[in-house]
Amino acid sequence: MQLGKVIGRVWASVKNPGLEGQRLLIVQPVLPDLTPHGKPLICTDSTGAGAGEVIYWVRGREASFPFLPGDVASDATIVGIVDELHLGKKREPSC
Amino acid sequence: MQLGKVIGRVWASVKNPGLEGQRLLIVQPVLPDLTPHGKPLICTDSTGAGAGEVIYWVRGREASFPFLPGDVASDATIVGIVDELHLGKKREPSC
Amino acid sequence: MQLGKVIGRVWASVKNPGLEGQRLLIVQPVLPDLTPHGKPLICTDSTGAGAGEVIYWVRGREASFPFLPGDVASDATIVGIVDELHLGKKREPSC
Amino acid sequence: MQLGKVIGRVWASVKNPGLEGQRLLIVQPVLPDLTPHGKPLICTDSTGAGAGEVIYWVRGREASFPFLPGDVASDATIVGIVDELHLGKKREPSC
Amino acid sequence: MQLGKVIGRVWASVKNPGLEGQRLLIVQPVLPDLTPHGKPLICTDSTGAGAGEVIYWVRGREASFPFLPGDVASDATIVGIVDELHLGKKREPSC
Repeated sequence: MQLGKVIGRVWASVKNPGLEGQRLLIVQPVLPDLTPHGKPLICTDSTGAGAGEVIYWVRGREASFPFLPGDVASDATIVGIVDELHLGKKREPSC
Repeated sequence: MQLGKVIGRVWASVKNPGLEGQRLLIVQPVLPDLTPHGKPLICTDSTGAGAGEVIYWVRGREASFPFLPGDVASDATIVGIVDELHLGKKREPSC
Repeated sequence: MQLGKVIGRVWASVKNPGLEGQRLLIVQPVLPDLTPHGKPLICTDSTGAGAGEVIYWVRGREASFPFLPGDVASDATIVGIVDELHLGKKREPSC
Repeated sequence: MQLGKVIGRVWASVKNPGLEGQRLLIVQPVLPDLTPHGKPLICTDSTGAGAGEVIYWVRGREASFPFLPGDVASDATIVGIVDELHLGKKREPSC
Repeated sequence: MQLGKVIGRVWASVKNPGLEGQRLLIVQPVLPDLTPHGKPLICTDSTGAGAGEVIYWVRGREASFPFLPGDVASDATIVGIVDELHLGKKREPSC
């Protein structure tokens, strides 16, 4: 899984039926210290995450697991909202 | 999913039967502010997208979901046409 | 799918039974203007492509679709030979 | 599989049911000489690995194999703890 | 598939049962001219490859095909040992 921050949302009226009813969030990948790193992507969401929240997402075939037995044509899905990160000996607040 | 813009099309007379009848579009990946980023790729299409449109595509195993129960040998498929992107507090028109 | 050009071939006498009888071609990924971009890879072939031809290949789980119901242990397969590329308003010959 | 070192842990109270009860570890990818290389990621664990240990993880569809027949929505799972690495003629201790 | 060279081996006493009895080799990816390129990875082996040999490996879901019907939790498996590479008009010995 990868860490990211929700930074926006996408609206699409024309879309594959397998994505009907799915919120599409724009996620900025971040490092464990929460600095942005890499290119934003679009994720479906299984957690109710909102703008600014630190989340982690799963990609690939597993991204459609949270929607089983539905056939959601997603390759990236938010599967958790981060409460806290612990690196080595020190704890860092996640937001 | 990734954001992209349709920039062209590919014609191929010799192809795998699993791709017969599929339009093959050339897609330039873009960032949420629509600047090009990364290498163009070839996508099948499940939306009817046309040249210049901002779309998002799905890759991997999920790219063949929109064509089920057909066995389309595609690893990248356009699954939505973007109406609008919303980043933080401001809205940006998608085209 | 990705664009590429066939630049060579690999011979291997010791190989997994799932690859017996498969031609293994060396493919150089190219951009839509046919300039090389990225690292060559080895592809199985479902089209009869030859040296110097511009092709596109599929990767991942879909790379074994053209060989179904056989279990070909391939993660990259050529699925089409390009006749022509069309970018924006102008057409470019593919070879 | 990739080599990595466990450098931290993530806590999340809101998460997909498919990840309930799973420890989520932050892993720093490393080269065979154990220098860090690339971006940390979040892994589920099937080995009981602890902070500072050198491990290897598997990604993609295989990352959910260790949890079968459960449907764990993970795309990266630690599958081994490294005792020793052997490069060419010399042996290097793994920690 | 990707070209690589076997450069070492990993020992792990704690590992997922799905990897019991598997040799784990360290592979350095190489270009067709056999210069190293990219980050070493750990592969399972279905060929009996040894140190210094030029091989090609398959990744992703296909990496577990050679071990079917076993559930080997591997995402990278050596599937062939290279005898010879042929680039354009000239032949290059593989080792």
